[in-house]
Amino acid sequence: MAQTGSADPLPSWNDTATKKAIVTFVERVAKAGSPDLVPPAERIATFDNDGTLWAEQPIYFQLAFALDRIKALAPMHPEWKDKEPFSFLLKGDLKGALAGGEAAIFEIVTVTHSGMTTVEFDQIVQEWMSTARHPVTKRLYTEMVYQPMLELLAYLRANEFKTFIVSGGGIDFMRVFAERVYGVPPEQTVGSSGKLNFELRDGKPVLMKMPELSFNDDKTGKPVGIQMHIGRRPIAAFGNSDGDLQMLEWARGGGGVRFALLVHHTDAEREWAYDRTSSIGRLDKALDTANAMGWTVVDMKADWKQIFPFGSK
Amino acid sequence: MAQTGSADPLPSWNDTATKKAIVTFVERVAKAGSPDLVPPAERIATFDNDGTLWAEQPIYFQLAFALDRIKALAPMHPEWKDKEPFSFLLKGDLKGALAGGEAAIFEIVTVTHSGMTTVEFDQIVQEWMSTARHPVTKRLYTEMVYQPMLELLAYLRANEFKTFIVSGGGIDFMRVFAERVYGVPPEQTVGSSGKLNFELRDGKPVLMKMPELSFNDDKTGKPVGIQMHIGRRPIAAFGNSDGDLQMLEWARGGGGVRFALLVHHTDAEREWAYDRTSSIGRLDKALDTANAMGWTVVDMKADWKQIFPFGSK
Repeated sequence: MAQTGSADPLPSWNDTATKKAIVTFVERVAKAGSPDLVPPAERIATFDNDGTLWAEQPIYFQLAFALDRIKALAPMHPEWKDKEPFSFLLKGDLKGALAGGEAAIFEIVTVTHSGMTTVEFDQIVQEWMSTARHPVTKRLYTEMVYQPMLELLAYLRANEFKTFIVSGGGIDFMRVFAERVYGVPPEQTVGSSGKLNFELRDGKPVLMKMPELSFNDDKTGKPVGIQMHIGRRPIAAFGNSDGDLQMLEWARGGGGVRFALLVHHTDAEREWAYDRTSSIGRLDKALDTANAMGWTVVDMKADWKQIFPFGSK
Repeated sequence: MAQTGSADPLPSWNDTATKKAIVTFVERVAKAGSPDLVPPAERIATFDNDGTLWAEQPIYFQLAFALDRIKALAPMHPEWKDKEPFSFLLKGDLKGALAGGEAAIFEIVTVTHSGMTTVEFDQIVQEWMSTARHPVTKRLYTEMVYQPMLELLAYLRANEFKTFIVSGGGIDFMRVFAERVYGVPPEQTVGSSGKLNFELRDGKPVLMKMPELSFNDDKTGKPVGIQMHIGRRPIAAFGNSDGDLQMLEWARGGGGVRFALLVHHTDAEREWAYDRTSSIGRLDKALDTANAMGWTVVDMKADWKQIFPFGSK
């Protein structure tokens, strides 16, 4: 049964067509008596994370984590002084380091996300999350989440949706905070991952994180990740970039009432404004598709009353 | 809060030490006031499928499905008459076909589990499940499930456990019946899988099943599959063969109260009796470990009042 009553479940959303589209969809699939009612077990909603549930500027937060780790690990790696991309990073030259393209990013991710057990990695991320600060707002990264999206997650769950994260971000990285911050438990968090090895260490079983990509949960990988982890096609999908296009197509491609939504970053003052030419969270082809197909597009500046729980940038 | 009241939640279990061990564990982690109480979110229980939730003799049921598919597809593949392992199968010589070892099995699985969309495969399995009969009992395969284990699944869920399947069987194969038969939804079913490709077919998105193994959810793969899909260590794990050893070790290796159980097939009359030398569901090293570590071992003949919902073989 759809959530009713007088309290507005989406108080941080302005009363625009976007909010109306969301509520109309939810009532169609979840309100008793609706001809389009969907059984609760099939009310699957998938959310991208970077740029959809939390911010991603000036750089992806997981990259910020990796760069902090490089600095922390540098004393144990004197050879990095003469080795790209680390040599650039240790001089504070991120642009120089990233000039090495995908290979450079792969090296940075590999040395910071492998060579330890899953439990050790969890503790490293936990420690970072509770201390590292966003360079612009000086807030904890877990505070840089979108208040309207937190309300949307809760609204969907109140209407018996099962909410999943489906992100290009690292699955083990996101699971450290997704349950506490978004109310999404580890088993409903889907992301990119490295290979794991089961080993006995001093007779105790551990899972070692290996320096090898196992799954890239981005673009066409998102519908694949959804099938692997969820095994059901979502009836609603939420993203913000070209990396989410196939996930939204997949959700919309099923029968019955479907919902696809893109968050468009249009608010340079309260958050950041970027789309077609941004190297982070590029929104180009997906925006064209959304416009052509009539998907819902959030105009952050017009549709959101409030950006972060603490206000705005 | 632990399920209480006068009704026995496990009526198909005899009142033996095995049943007592199960109830004692559940009450320790789930009964209000227990010093070992585990928060519901962490009450994760993982179950193997073949030989643990349903039978696996005289051959794994998914192999029976594959063999039936080979027969159904043969008219479209005249070349199979002269090509092993198909030539053997078409003559009804399973032993000859399987003499080709893993390579032969891989060929059989590949041609029957790839080359179609996930939706098409789902329909093929659905059709088979509703018509194919077990060679000995003549029952539908979905009737060949263990009544005591169905009760155990329900008992755990009544005590706020989240129950998962973690099986070497194909994930897409199991999902066709796991929800209806076991009450385990697709997103809580973990298994082996082939590679998937996202494609547009006549402008509509599909996921194609490719002829390439993506993940082998057996032995050391089980703790890896658990971490990938669930992201939490189970506090209870249930299996029946050496393929489950690492999953049980992983569950037992965490802190607090833990439970590991092996189903030992000891009842030649009502089901099948096999263990250390069986090529299907071999239980050898895991039985030694269970005995050494004090894990719970179900003696099917002594512990189970009833085998299948319809009775016994």
